[in-house]
Amino acid sequence: MKRIAIIGLGVIGASLGMALKNARPDFEVLGSDIDPPTVKKAMEMAAINRPLLDEDLCGCAIVFIATPLRIIPEVLIRIRGQISPGTIVSDVGSVKSWVMHQYEKYLPPDITFIGGHPLAGSDRSGITGADKYLLQNAVYVLTPSAAADAEKVEILYKLLAHIGATPMVLSSDEHDRMVSKVSHLPHIAAASLMNMLEHNLEDLHLAGGGLRDTTRIAASNPELWEDILLLNGTAVADGIRDFISQLENYLNVISNNDDTSLNQYLTSAQRTRKNMPLVRSSLQHCADIVAIIPDKPGIIGFLGTLLGDADININDIQIMGVRDENEGSIRMGVPQSQAYAALELLKNNGIKAWLRS
Amino acid sequence: MKRIAIIGLGVIGASLGMALKNARPDFEVLGSDIDPPTVKKAMEMAAINRPLLDEDLCGCAIVFIATPLRIIPEVLIRIRGQISPGTIVSDVGSVKSWVMHQYEKYLPPDITFIGGHPLAGSDRSGITGADKYLLQNAVYVLTPSAAADAEKVEILYKLLAHIGATPMVLSSDEHDRMVSKVSHLPHIAAASLMNMLEHNLEDLHLAGGGLRDTTRIAASNPELWEDILLLNGTAVADGIRDFISQLENYLNVISNNDDTSLNQYLTSAQRTRKNMPLVRSSLQHCADIVAIIPDKPGIIGFLGTLLGDADININDIQIMGVRDENEGSIRMGVPQSQAYAALELLKNNGIKAWLRS
Repeated sequence: MKRIAIIGLGVIGASLGMALKNARPDFEVLGSDIDPPTVKKAMEMAAINRPLLDEDLCGCAIVFIATPLRIIPEVLIRIRGQISPGTIVSDVGSVKSWVMHQYEKYLPPDITFIGGHPLAGSDRSGITGADKYLLQNAVYVLTPSAAADAEKVEILYKLLAHIGATPMVLSSDEHDRMVSKVSHLPHIAAASLMNMLEHNLEDLHLAGGGLRDTTRIAASNPELWEDILLLNGTAVADGIRDFISQLENYLNVISNNDDTSLNQYLTSAQRTRKNMPLVRSSLQHCADIVAIIPDKPGIIGFLGTLLGDADININDIQIMGVRDENEGSIRMGVPQSQAYAALELLKNNGIKAWLRS
Repeated sequence: MKRIAIIGLGVIGASLGMALKNARPDFEVLGSDIDPPTVKKAMEMAAINRPLLDEDLCGCAIVFIATPLRIIPEVLIRIRGQISPGTIVSDVGSVKSWVMHQYEKYLPPDITFIGGHPLAGSDRSGITGADKYLLQNAVYVLTPSAAADAEKVEILYKLLAHIGATPMVLSSDEHDRMVSKVSHLPHIAAASLMNMLEHNLEDLHLAGGGLRDTTRIAASNPELWEDILLLNGTAVADGIRDFISQLENYLNVISNNDDTSLNQYLTSAQRTRKNMPLVRSSLQHCADIVAIIPDKPGIIGFLGTLLGDADININDIQIMGVRDENEGSIRMGVPQSQAYAALELLKNNGIKAWLRS
């Protein structure tokens, strides 16, 4: 029987444990956490078989470190004397080059270390947010060191694919550059837009859905982001410089009243946005229906039952605006193949509805 | 009987007509559009009583210009010889100082011009997107000129309040500065983030919900935004410079590894974001419930009916993620006073649910 250790049983660590135990009941999953009640809770939730003790480490085929980034060095110092040669050590941190340097610094050369970053977020942090499906369909980046044993990389890759994640092998530098652009820069942009307004809060009276969407992530935990931005400092600083030069392009064309170039920039941005893949692959073949509905108790139930009875699955739904006490509009994602049937059904029931382009 | 003219029957013009006819059936609302079938459609939709002819203009108490911004000067040239002294002329454009200059340039001094900007968006453009509730609860900015007759401003103010909008009087410069920060800059930020990625589309494989939210508005119509950004060029250029200096703050603290200052910036941004008012006042006293639900036809109907039967109104709903074929999580907004009752009801029906902080 294969034994796997998970150090840190927060939302990612515990979800990983649940997924492993679910997919491979023959494995023994051991876990530890700085907080003893969390370990007890992990057993109740079937995220681990039993608590991980220091003496168990020598028998583990894979050790996942699922602690906050800053804790990784002290974990490596604690485990390096216990793990056996050949063990695979990985982590789940959202910055990779810095972590790879910690591995190099603290682990003996007979250990295979492979950086890991599951792109899975949860609305909840801590073990109470754990869920055996959290990693399902999530891109899971692996950053093996140049010296990593290819067979060991394959073992980890296949295990992650087996629990339903989508593994992707990248160099740690490449990973860090990519996430600086698609994750860390958007965070700084959102935060900067909010910083601009902090001394003019009355400006927010004119704020609409655009600002709300654009700055939603600025509400996230500052401590978490402080670590991410500093530990990926080089790539993030490059990203900010690149972002500033894009903004200077806009500043120049607007100052020069250059409508042709401005239109080119905006059109190119629109095209890129429209090409953005959806993260959840199951939402990809979805058509959006917008309907005007009375805003009263039971109407969502009526709509849901109407489509459900026709075996049409609503796989995305959002109330777009409540205009007054009486009416609102709602957006529903349905499988593309059932879009026209759904539209017909709504119209036959007197509901104003259309397909969103 | 009061006669009102609406020139341009797109989503805003036609929605304004519907709201006016609904609130003041004693008024006669006349409308024109560059596209003759649109005028016919406006009559069918009860957005106007009849088409507006040039000779009707002299009898109109208020003329609303609801065309694209760029068209306003030629509309003013066409109507200025027809309207009577004392007529109120207004518009619905999202830039105000430029429009006020057009009014000054083209209208005789005995006309009261008052700039207008309803902050109401629709998912659809053109008359087919019109809706008598579109302006309901929407902030509607009025920018009277310094010379404007105070009584006339009050007439327009009260009429807009009467149709359910929330009028707010500002100077045109103040309006333009405010919207540059809360609307035009977020647009440029979203577009710039997309421009950064246009030559590295493969980076989008690591994109998550953060990037999707932050850049959603970059998918909007480039022609519309080209006009807005150029016609509010001065305020937008100031805004970009301010935004760049915020980004330089982040660049400095990250380059200097200054965790204390970085934490201050992020914490301040988080506080401002959490203070952001919701635009739709009816959503303000809403609590968010997150539930894990099986992903199958009819489940939305089941949930909606469950809460509806208990007279709990779901006034916001969103499917947050579909993990695999079997399960997903859903967010539902319910009135704050009913949040615990809703939670209890869901739990009693075997649904894992919690309040989102």
